[in-house]
Amino acid sequence: MQKLVVRCFALSLDGFSSAPGQSLENPFGKGGLVIMDWARQTRSFHKMIGQEGGSTGIDDDFMAKAMDNIGANILGRNMFGPVRGPWADDDWKGWWGPNPPYHTQVFVVTHHARSALAMEGGTTFHFVNDGIESALQQAFVAAQGKDVRLGGGATLVRQYLQAGLIDELHIVITDKLLGSGERLFEGTDNLARDYECVETVASGTVTHVRLAKKKRD
Amino acid sequence: MQKLVVRCFALSLDGFSSAPGQSLENPFGKGGLVIMDWARQTRSFHKMIGQEGGSTGIDDDFMAKAMDNIGANILGRNMFGPVRGPWADDDWKGWWGPNPPYHTQVFVVTHHARSALAMEGGTTFHFVNDGIESALQQAFVAAQGKDVRLGGGATLVRQYLQAGLIDELHIVITDKLLGSGERLFEGTDNLARDYECVETVASGTVTHVRLAKKKRD
Ligand SMILES: NC(=O)c1ccc[n+]([C@@H]2O[C@H](COP(=O)([O-])OP(=O)(O)OC[C@H]3O[C@@H](n4cnc5c(N)ncnc54)[C@H](OP(=O)(O)O)[C@@H]3O)[C@@H](O)[C@H]2O)c1
Ligand SMILES: NC(=O)c1ccc[n+]([C@@H]2O[C@H](COP(=O)([O-])OP(=O)(O)OC[C@H]3O[C@@H](n4cnc5c(N)ncnc54)[C@H](OP(=O)(O)O)[C@@H]3O)[C@@H](O)[C@H]2O)c1
Repeated sequence: MQKLVVRCFALSLDGFSSAPGQSLENPFGKGGLVIMDWARQTRSFHKMIGQEGGSTGIDDDFMAKAMDNIGANILGRNMFGPVRGPWADDDWKGWWGPNPPYHTQVFVVTHHARSALAMEGGTTFHFVNDGIESALQQAFVAAQGKDVRLGGGATLVRQYLQAGLIDELHIVITDKLLGSGERLFEGTDNLARDYECVETVASGTVTHVRLAKKKRD
Repeated sequence: MQKLVVRCFALSLDGFSSAPGQSLENPFGKGGLVIMDWARQTRSFHKMIGQEGGSTGIDDDFMAKAMDNIGANILGRNMFGPVRGPWADDDWKGWWGPNPPYHTQVFVVTHHARSALAMEGGTTFHFVNDGIESALQQAFVAAQGKDVRLGGGATLVRQYLQAGLIDELHIVITDKLLGSGERLFEGTDNLARDYECVETVASGTVTHVRLAKKKRD
């Protein structure tokens, strides 16, 4: 069975996954990038951006496995970029440069139609504007038997959680405070009924928590 | 300098400190008591309710120190009990029986006047209805140089946090999901500016996090 998984999704201690005020300079909102400090210091992250060094250990293990058995990705439109409203042109091609770190078909959920965008390294962005279920169906097909990773942001993850469509959710509770921003757990009243915590591992300043969908008898 | 401290304040993974539907049978709301599992299994908790046994280790260490150097306590009216509105009579004397585990003056913040209530073991409940600052002033006086512990619930802790009046906040992030309830971090936009995380310690399924007020230069 193919799964929809969320991996390495970082939260501030007060529950936010990004700060307000996203812009070209501040992909995670103003001051929001600190919740990724734990990830950015790992060897896997260094490798991803073509650098030597970085930490090994629990945080790095989670980062190293984040793309394991992933055949397609789904992103929210704001995770793809800071552009809002109808696409005026095709200039914006994501935060990641010519060779994005996905190397799969990527389905960007948006209300605004746009043609598919083929990048280097096997990544193609498809803009899906008929809802989260359609994006998931297309991603499962594209993944050819492998799992699908839902990258974020919170607005999109929340909707898949509410619909009970996520099979595994790995969150990273950091020691950073944001005060405001996008909450992951908001209006997710079904969480206690549909999900359970299956793993808690701490690594210094952050705690990795894995939630899984409850098995029905 | 006397401090206002919060200790052993438990949160569900999704950020709630109690579930909806508080009643005599469900002090933490329906299904909410699970966020106290970590505490109830410790030796210190067993001792508090007059029983043998219980776990030792990190969780127990935090529980054992929760009353260290505490000279007075502050509680919200709902933490004191499930009665709402004006006090019809003086029948309700708290959840804790004739000898509550405070053994100090306790200031219960409420909109509804009621005479002070002396209990066994040195606990006296005072009902303060002129605001959180008044409760804190009275508690500092009563504590005679020792610190004041703010017990909860979230509605009250939030107000003291927003006012920047809490010096140290120890929260316990559990592996339980509640889906809904009272949030500790809601409308606490000042958190990132005024507080910082000074300790993160995990103990199996829960993570202990200590926040402290930032030092001003
Ligand atoms: N903490 C982490 O680990 C993490 C992970 C990923 C991202 N992030 C951060 O999170 C932020 C982005 O998250 P976000 O919550 O603001 O936004 P998001 O989930 O990335 O995107 C939300 C947008 O996607 C479109 N959309 C969402 N649901 C839709 C639906 N059902 N149908 C059609 N379109 C839909 C809408 O845009 P339109 O109406 O404009 O099309 C909506 O405004 C960024 O700052 C990013 O850096 C953090
Ligand atoms: N997770 C934990 O570690 C923890 C710790 C403590 C308690 N709890 C749980 O939390 C729940 C109680 O928390 P809660 O947030 O519902 O309520 P609470 O903070 O205990 O009490 C709120 C009530 O106190 C009164 N009050 C608050 N601020 C006031 C002010 N500025 N002036 C006058 N009165 C004020 C109001 O009652 P009136 O208007 O009726 O007077 C208000 O409804 C209980 O289920 C308890 O078991 C959990």
